[in-house]
Parts: sequence; structure tokens; C-alpha cells
Amino acid sequence: MIALDVMGGDRAPAATITGAIRWARSTGSKPILVGNLTIIHQLLDHGGEDPAAWTSVSAPVTVGMDAQPVKAIRSLPDASIRRCAELVKSGQAQALVSMGNTGAALAAGVIVVGRATGVERPGLAALLPGGPKPTLLIDVGANVEARPEHLRDFGLMGAIYQQQTFGIVEPRVGILSNGEEITKGNPLVRDAAVLLTESPLAFIGHVEPAVLYGDTADVIVCDGFTGNLVLKSLEATAEFAFDEVRKGVRRHPYTLPGLALLYPALRSVRQSTDYAQYGGVPLLGVNGVVIIGHGRSNAVAVVNALNVAANGIRSNLVNRIAEGLTTIRR
Amino acid sequence: MIALDVMGGDRAPAATITGAIRWARSTGSKPILVGNLTIIHQLLDHGGEDPAAWTSVSAPVTVGMDAQPVKAIRSLPDASIRRCAELVKSGQAQALVSMGNTGAALAAGVIVVGRATGVERPGLAALLPGGPKPTLLIDVGANVEARPEHLRDFGLMGAIYQQQTFGIVEPRVGILSNGEEITKGNPLVRDAAVLLTESPLAFIGHVEPAVLYGDTADVIVCDGFTGNLVLKSLEATAEFAFDEVRKGVRRHPYTLPGLALLYPALRSVRQSTDYAQYGGVPLLGVNGVVIIGHGRSNAVAVVNALNVAANGIRSNLVNRIAEGLTTIRR
Repeated sequence: MIALDVMGGDRAPAATITGAIRWARSTGSKPILVGNLTIIHQLLDHGGEDPAAWTSVSAPVTVGMDAQPVKAIRSLPDASIRRCAELVKSGQAQALVSMGNTGAALAAGVIVVGRATGVERPGLAALLPGGPKPTLLIDVGANVEARPEHLRDFGLMGAIYQQQTFGIVEPRVGILSNGEEITKGNPLVRDAAVLLTESPLAFIGHVEPAVLYGDTADVIVCDGFTGNLVLKSLEATAEFAFDEVRKGVRRHPYTLPGLALLYPALRSVRQSTDYAQYGGVPLLGVNGVVIIGHGRSNAVAVVNALNVAANGIRSNLVNRIAEGLTTIRR
Repeated sequence: MIALDVMGGDRAPAATITGAIRWARSTGSKPILVGNLTIIHQLLDHGGEDPAAWTSVSAPVTVGMDAQPVKAIRSLPDASIRRCAELVKSGQAQALVSMGNTGAALAAGVIVVGRATGVERPGLAALLPGGPKPTLLIDVGANVEARPEHLRDFGLMGAIYQQQTFGIVEPRVGILSNGEEITKGNPLVRDAAVLLTESPLAFIGHVEPAVLYGDTADVIVCDGFTGNLVLKSLEATAEFAFDEVRKGVRRHPYTLPGLALLYPALRSVRQSTDYAQYGGVPLLGVNGVVIIGHGRSNAVAVVNALNVAANGIRSNLVNRIAEGLTTIRR
């Protein structure tokens, strides 16, 4: 079962309920709807569904986008994201999906759902669609600090995710650095590279950010501070590029017909950093499948996130990561 | 006097000599040309100049783009970039300009030219032209590790550079972080933020990468590992955006006329991360003006770099930084 945080996200609850209904109709399974029951029942009814046929759990409080995550999770027992995490913790659900405050979902995953066996540090993974196959960047913000063995573990968790989700048989794992030579990198990078070389992973060494757009690596590891800044840098540039071209068009309206044809290219620029395109960002290494969607998610994105979560349950992601980490430590 | 590394750069020595000649004709001053004397004399002659009217210094060895920087500087006494640095060290020149291997220029600056009085760690500054005025990001690679006081000093050196170069009276200094709240950031960021708050600088707190494109900060400080990765992330995305739109045009040739009109927008996207647009990247905190241009620099970029170097000498940049650091430490 998947617990869906109905209240999280800029377009919630309308987009989350619409997504849930569509997903239920196409797959035959229903997520557990967690949020304000009155709203949930109204929207189900409005969508042509019988509320009695769905499982809903009352959680009338929404964690705002500006809330301080850890504090919110600890102090708000009725918050929808916390209730989702409790359902996973208690085994009533095996996965949770939230489009709300990323920090709060992260905190709920780490604090409430808890770490999987053998995992010291869960990692937040972003899937970057710039290349022919998505490149997984981990960690993009679960830990502002990390030790070398955490980066090695991120590599393993990311590789298992890429195997299970995209069928990449032997994912190539690189470590993000300020140069390709092994002499480059800060001490964390250099020490982690040694551990990755000794690991059974297909380690390809130091890689630079340009690799995020190519077909060189399937998994790229870094600490959460660096990963978060790199991800936000990609987003900022893509947004700037999109805006500049749009402004150029506004200055020269005669370019509009041409622009219609360029639209796929422009969209691809914007999507190149839209890590939520694959349904959301998985939090790897916790004791359940946790998928965090983008705050801007519409109903289609909600359907994608539910599919990713269902796939995580089906492929037994949590146990495979725990097994993998036990093996790598032997 | 400015020592110009004639041999460094993808288009050297033709672009460097052409740039030197143009700059000499427009300003009436001549840089010291450092490199292979036969080539220098031939190219001056070819450009309609009398070689006897120029000061040239023999340095027949070029540090390749792939060379290991520190090793190259230490082991190649005849390397043009090392000779330039020695001219600054000995006082025969007050500035050096190189379009060659960035790492080698950096090493020559730190090892040969040496740190300015009061400076513990020189910082490499990139000027990002995305916003209405350039935003200075420091450090983008001089130090893979830094302590909080180094980040504070980068803020001061960057602010003085922005004052002297772009006339920004009270530069706003931010610290790059994974969120705007003061609780965000790794320990380095949090400790440096305390020092910046206590400093006389106009400190605006934690900033995220989107600020690199806006008009929120004039100087953004970070450690050299993070800054290097952020800079390379911006470049990779801008390059990707440019390529995607170009591919879109190739698929639909009828968009070509429209594209001609969109060209300024596309160019601005590409230039948004072209930190060499302002003539090069200054290495701040060394005992002379060191300007490192992009390897791709053409003659126009060489002229710009020479102008930036001349401005650095004229505005007494080195002493102002030393004075500023002495004051801030009091």
C-alpha cells in the first residue's frame, strides 16, 4: 500500500486527489489518502468516486512550504506527512508519496520511518533527465555533512535504485569532483574514491558536473551540501536560459511561429534539470519507499510518483538496499 | 607594467600578440611580452610593429592545458607563465595576464608571486554576468578547503574588487548555502556567517545559487571546491541549453530566420556563465594583479584582460586588499 500525502504541494489537494483517482483507475489499486477528510470526501465525490471505497486517514494539518522541517515533524502529530510516515512505520503502508515541503518529507522519512537495516545515512537522490538515460545524483540534501563511507553507501544505494527502476545492469558510479584527476577533490572526495575503488561497484572515478548531461555515469555521489548546491545551480541556469529566450521572443514577435517549432527544445532545457520528471526524488536508505515529488506537481506528476512508489514496493527496493549494504561491508 | 603570457591559450600566440598590439595602440602603453622570442618578433613584424620598440622576455616553454599545475610551475623555469610571475615578484611588472592553463596560472600566482601582506589564502574570483551588474563568486578553485576566516577574507577581497572595478559603493556580500535560513549550511558556512556578521561588510546572509543571476548580491563567498562545482554546473547547463536550441533549429530549418532574431537571447544564455567576459578571472590576495583569461580567449578578450589588469594597477588593488584585511582583523 502507498500512503499519499493529499495536503502537500502547491496544487494540493485538487492535483493529488485527481492523480490518485487516475492512478487507481489505470492500475486497479488505491493509495491510502492522508489529509483533511472532509476535503478528501468532497473531492472524491466530485471526481465520480465513492469515498466509502477508499481508505482515508485523518490528518488535518499541512506543513507549510516555509516551515522548519524537523520542528514541524516533531511538533505536529496531525501533519499529513507525519501521518503518512507513521503508516509506513507501522507496516500499514510500504511506501509514501508527498509533494509537500521537501525538508519535512525528508525529516519524516529519517525520523519517523527510520533507517533501513545497515544504513547509517539515508540519501536523497535526484534523477537528472539531461542525458539519454537519467543520471542519479545522490545526496542532494539529506545530509549537509558526510563521511567517506557514506558516499560509498550512496553509490551502492543509487546503483540498486538504477538497476531496479531503469534496468541498468551494471550502473557506472562516479564521484563529483573539481577535476577528473585522482589528485583532485577535497579530502572527503579522495577518501571516498578509495573506498569506491575497493567496492564491487563499477566505479569510474572523479567526474565533473558536465557529466550530469551525458552518458558517462549512471550514479554520481557527493555530500548533501554540494549536491544541493549543484542541483540548485542547474535549475537556476535552466530557468535563466528559458527566460532569456522567452524575452527574446517578446522583443521580436515575428519569431513566434518559429518558436512554436523550437518549443520542444526549450522544454527540454527546462526539463533538463526537472528532477521531478521521473515522479519525484527517492529518499534511499529508509525503512520504506519514500518518494518526494516537486511542490509544483500536477495530477500527471502525482500519477508518476505513485507509479515510482509502486515499482519500489514491487522490486523490493528497501530489502535490496539493506542486503547490498550488508554485502559491501563484509 | 603588465607581463603578458604570450604562449598561453588555445588561440595563442596569434590572439595574444594581436590583442597586445590593439591594446598598445589604443592606450599608448605596451605590455611586456613573455614567450618564444622568434615567434613574438615574427608576429609583431607581421602586425606592423617594430619588435625593437617592445620589451620581450624569453620563455620558450608552454605549460599545456593538461599539465599538472604545481609540478609544471616548480619544474619548468622556462615556462612563460612562471616567467611572468617572476617579473611581478621582482617588481619589473605589477600585473600578469595569462590565457593558459588556469591551474598553472593559479600556482604561479600563489607560489611565485606570493601572498599579499595579511592574506592567508588567495581566492579565485569569477564574475558572472547573468544579472544587471556582474556578481562576483569567490573562491572558484584556489583552495579546495577553507576555514571560516578565509571565507570572511574572500568577502572582503571580493568587495574591494567590486568597488575598484565596477564602482559598487557598498557591495552586498552573501554566503552560498543550501537554504536562506541561518540554520542552513554546513559548519563552515555557519561559522563563516558569524564572522561575516561581525565584520564591517554589508553582509546579507545565506544565499542560494539562483542569486547568481539576480541583483541581490554583489559578492558571494564559498570554499573553492563548492565554487568550482557550482561554476562548472552553470557552464554545463548553459552549454546544454545552447545545444538543445541549436538541435531544435536543425530539425526545423524554417526556424532559422527566427533564430537569427533570437540570437542575442541565446548568446546571453551562453554568456551568462562566461566568467571570462569581463576579461578574465582575478586571483585576489596575491602580491600583484593576476588576471587569468579563458583558454578560448580571442584578441578582444586579451584586450579586455589587459584593461582589467591596468585598472587593477591604477586602482592600487593589491594595497587596498592588504589594508582592508589589516583593518578587518583589528
